[in-house]
Amino acid sequence: MTATTRTPQGERTRAMRLRLMEATVSCLVELGWAGTSTTVVSQRAGVSRGAQLHHFPSKQDLVVAAVEHLTERRRDDLSAAVAELPEQGRTRAVLDVLAAQFVSPVFFAALELWVAARTDEDLHAAVAPLERRVGRETHAYAVDLLRIDESRGSNRRLVQATLDLMRGLGLAASLSDDTARRTAILDTWAITLDEELER
Amino acid sequence: MTATTRTPQGERTRAMRLRLMEATVSCLVELGWAGTSTTVVSQRAGVSRGAQLHHFPSKQDLVVAAVEHLTERRRDDLSAAVAELPEQGRTRAVLDVLAAQFVSPVFFAALELWVAARTDEDLHAAVAPLERRVGRETHAYAVDLLRIDESRGSNRRLVQATLDLMRGLGLAASLSDDTARRTAILDTWAITLDEELER
Repeated sequence: MTATTRTPQGERTRAMRLRLMEATVSCLVELGWAGTSTTVVSQRAGVSRGAQLHHFPSKQDLVVAAVEHLTERRRDDLSAAVAELPEQGRTRAVLDVLAAQFVSPVFFAALELWVAARTDEDLHAAVAPLERRVGRETHAYAVDLLRIDESRGSNRRLVQATLDLMRGLGLAASLSDDTARRTAILDTWAITLDEELER
Repeated sequence: MTATTRTPQGERTRAMRLRLMEATVSCLVELGWAGTSTTVVSQRAGVSRGAQLHHFPSKQDLVVAAVEHLTERRRDDLSAAVAELPEQGRTRAVLDVLAAQFVSPVFFAALELWVAARTDEDLHAAVAPLERRVGRETHAYAVDLLRIDESRGSNRRLVQATLDLMRGLGLAASLSDDTARRTAILDTWAITLDEELER
């Protein structure tokens, strides 16, 4: 932390940026891409339009920063859960930790960005690198949690498939609460991974 | 086919409805949910506003009918591919047939509907039953193609996981062309299914 960010002014700025980003994610989750505007976000965050425009000049700046920041923060929040992973049934518990990242408001907010980016060239240019980076990080994270060497056997592909499965489960969860179905699928997938992963 | 639908008038009506539905899907694919309007669709289909409103009174009627119709037609189109499935490497070939349903313009159009429905109560009421029905049909179709008894072992859960994986792969494909990555994942998934499915 530099001297600047330690000053009260720096702290206030940081807190304001955070409020704007959190308001953006809650807007995307509740109102969707079309319903999210910088005006609505400023109001929700209790931040003046001028200050909002200074920090995030456009809707695109705001939504990309917000999803990036909260994806990272969510991962930090998970460290606690990870520290408590059991030795018995570890694979199944890891799947729950991963699934929690996909069946979450932050995933639903990201989904709004991804789908809007498919038909919006400028947004796509901003979202595609973010999606690739988050994808790489989540992959490395899953490899760590599963305690595998991804150069062995089909380990790398099995982790990729696991994360694509999670993405599909997250998409299904966005339309209806299908917790029971998801739990049963993850039970079966944990058994499959324990049989198929080379350890 | 009834006498009515055989008349030239019935044929013309059917052709017009089809043009409207195809224009709707191409609009959703190219312009996304926000860019799709009944006006744009009528223009693209070369159908008068009056006729369009007569057949599909609202945007919601139009998009739900269009995605439903084209999902069904796409499945019919696949019968030819299915008839040619090889005996050797059948599971891998089945995965390609299924993946083709998810990495497709019709899936991208459906994705626009699903995501919009998450934050639009009326649309949700129309889309949720359609999504459940298509989901059940696709599941039964996959069970058929894989020639398995889904009451045995974990067969049912493995098919569900396969279709959630496909949904995740389709979502990934909507942002960037990742054919090589998808192919490698499906190679590994086919081997896993052949080992884990009870036949």
